[in-house]
Amino acid sequence: MSDVVVAVDAMGGDKAPLVPVAGALEAAREGIGILLVGDEGAIGRALAQHDHVPRNVEVIHAADRILSTDDAVKAVRTRPDASMVVACRQVHEGRAGAVISAGHTGGMLAASTLILRRLPGVIRPGLAVPMPSIAGPIVMIDGGANAECKPEYLAQFAVMGRVLGRDILGIHDPTVGILTIGEEAGKGTDLVLETYELLEGTPGFIGNIEGRDIPKGKARIIVTDGFTGNVALKLYEGTAAMIFHEIKRGLTSSLRGKVAGALGMSVFKDLRRHIDPEEYGSAYLLGVRGISMIGHGNTGTRGMANGIRRAAQGVRGDVTGHIQAGLAAGD
Amino acid sequence: MSDVVVAVDAMGGDKAPLVPVAGALEAAREGIGILLVGDEGAIGRALAQHDHVPRNVEVIHAADRILSTDDAVKAVRTRPDASMVVACRQVHEGRAGAVISAGHTGGMLAASTLILRRLPGVIRPGLAVPMPSIAGPIVMIDGGANAECKPEYLAQFAVMGRVLGRDILGIHDPTVGILTIGEEAGKGTDLVLETYELLEGTPGFIGNIEGRDIPKGKARIIVTDGFTGNVALKLYEGTAAMIFHEIKRGLTSSLRGKVAGALGMSVFKDLRRHIDPEEYGSAYLLGVRGISMIGHGNTGTRGMANGIRRAAQGVRGDVTGHIQAGLAAGD
Repeated sequence: MSDVVVAVDAMGGDKAPLVPVAGALEAAREGIGILLVGDEGAIGRALAQHDHVPRNVEVIHAADRILSTDDAVKAVRTRPDASMVVACRQVHEGRAGAVISAGHTGGMLAASTLILRRLPGVIRPGLAVPMPSIAGPIVMIDGGANAECKPEYLAQFAVMGRVLGRDILGIHDPTVGILTIGEEAGKGTDLVLETYELLEGTPGFIGNIEGRDIPKGKARIIVTDGFTGNVALKLYEGTAAMIFHEIKRGLTSSLRGKVAGALGMSVFKDLRRHIDPEEYGSAYLLGVRGISMIGHGNTGTRGMANGIRRAAQGVRGDVTGHIQAGLAAGD
Repeated sequence: MSDVVVAVDAMGGDKAPLVPVAGALEAAREGIGILLVGDEGAIGRALAQHDHVPRNVEVIHAADRILSTDDAVKAVRTRPDASMVVACRQVHEGRAGAVISAGHTGGMLAASTLILRRLPGVIRPGLAVPMPSIAGPIVMIDGGANAECKPEYLAQFAVMGRVLGRDILGIHDPTVGILTIGEEAGKGTDLVLETYELLEGTPGFIGNIEGRDIPKGKARIIVTDGFTGNVALKLYEGTAAMIFHEIKRGLTSSLRGKVAGALGMSVFKDLRRHIDPEEYGSAYLLGVRGISMIGHGNTGTRGMANGIRRAAQGVRGDVTGHIQAGLAAGD
């Protein structure tokens, strides 16, 4: 009997159901209860590739699945048998403490909001995305759930982001910064100015930060609207990937380079792992009743297993309760 | 007698007047006429460090200078003897075709807009920032002149950015993309949707791009509001700097790493140069009467010289005339 159960959308992601199933089994072996939600035939074939399926893995059939080409909100409202909808229902109905999907991001945002529902007092759930920095993990919130935001949303994101940072990412007393532009270029937008007023004097708040401060980890919780946050996190990932690609290309184009690459391998591998998105396992939709995690479509087995581990940690540590208490207390 | 004259704010930047003076002399040796604007005593001492000062270098005394701590707009309005104000006046009064400063960005934006004035038909000048990508140079516009924008501004930025890309950066028929968030996360902001409608069917327009497309160079002219643009360009620079710093740290922490670093040196140097902001020399305020360039405060001699070369190229190629014609024609 597992102390915590995670519902896994087995049909979500580019390599579903193979990757979600493999990741779920990895986490199940550590004692986490798993509900694998999706087409039972396809899941059965994926499970058959593994020698042993732990007893704490259960399959829940869902005949339908939401594709990345579907209109997210409409699909969630009209297709009750879609795997991510059924997976979210497991949390709403108390059979699981957390849900994770590497499927359609918009679909999972809609399913989580509509089925799990907001926590009391939450104006808008925010997508919290853990990212690497030289100071350790940082969190961008909102990473894209709300393209347009009001200052009150951002003030709540700060509180919720701090709970995530502390309880799941292990950051001691996380600092909070508002993402904005250099003072030389003006005073920032009204959103930034008004959010500053709301956050001034709250725990961890260090003021404004600029784009260049993100990789430095100057603030561990970065508060911004979902438009800026989404652009920034995709740019951050894309830039790191581009530089590693170019280094690899350079180091394999000559014998001298190949020798350098072989000798420096451990350095590159360390750094690559340090800034690997799979390390922190997915994004978190904070502010709903239960834990909802959304993985990259191209998440691998390790990323999926890490996501499930973090989800279980969140359930065990009562992240949702802490968020609620934090919002009620003003932190 | 030089065919083109560039006014250089000798007092702008962290290492002024030494760096602006050294960069200006490098460009002057190639035949570009230079007006060095600033404190004549300080400029004289900087010039005295060089063996030979070409005849096409002239010093114009300006007793005052705007510091990064000053209120930009107020300083420009009330301090007519500030070096960047005097430098801009050289263009307005026809003694120079271009002006460049590595001083206070906000001050230079204000001085350019107030003294050079907008070109007829331009709603708002935009700060165009050349950046590297694996496909070659790209341009982010607006990089921070207008924190809040309207669709009509962005449509003009696209036209002006294309002229810069073609005439100064040598990009053949530059592609244009609107920076936005993944479709999965919603439909983007109203600004994005309305700008899309204005740009649809215009030359080079390829539609929306995401943050991850920036380092790939998917669009060579990236159109966005000054808030998002400024966050993105600083993040882009900061991420590259962070990765190189970490690689260097890793490669110098062991003998094995040091050997790898020595052997791979040419690869790292190539890549570093490829993504070096100094390569493309400063940002351009497009949409004013004349060419106005704003350098990084920490620009080095090479960056300053490159900036002056690009400025001269812009004057010779009549970038301002092309922008005006482009806006009048709809491209």
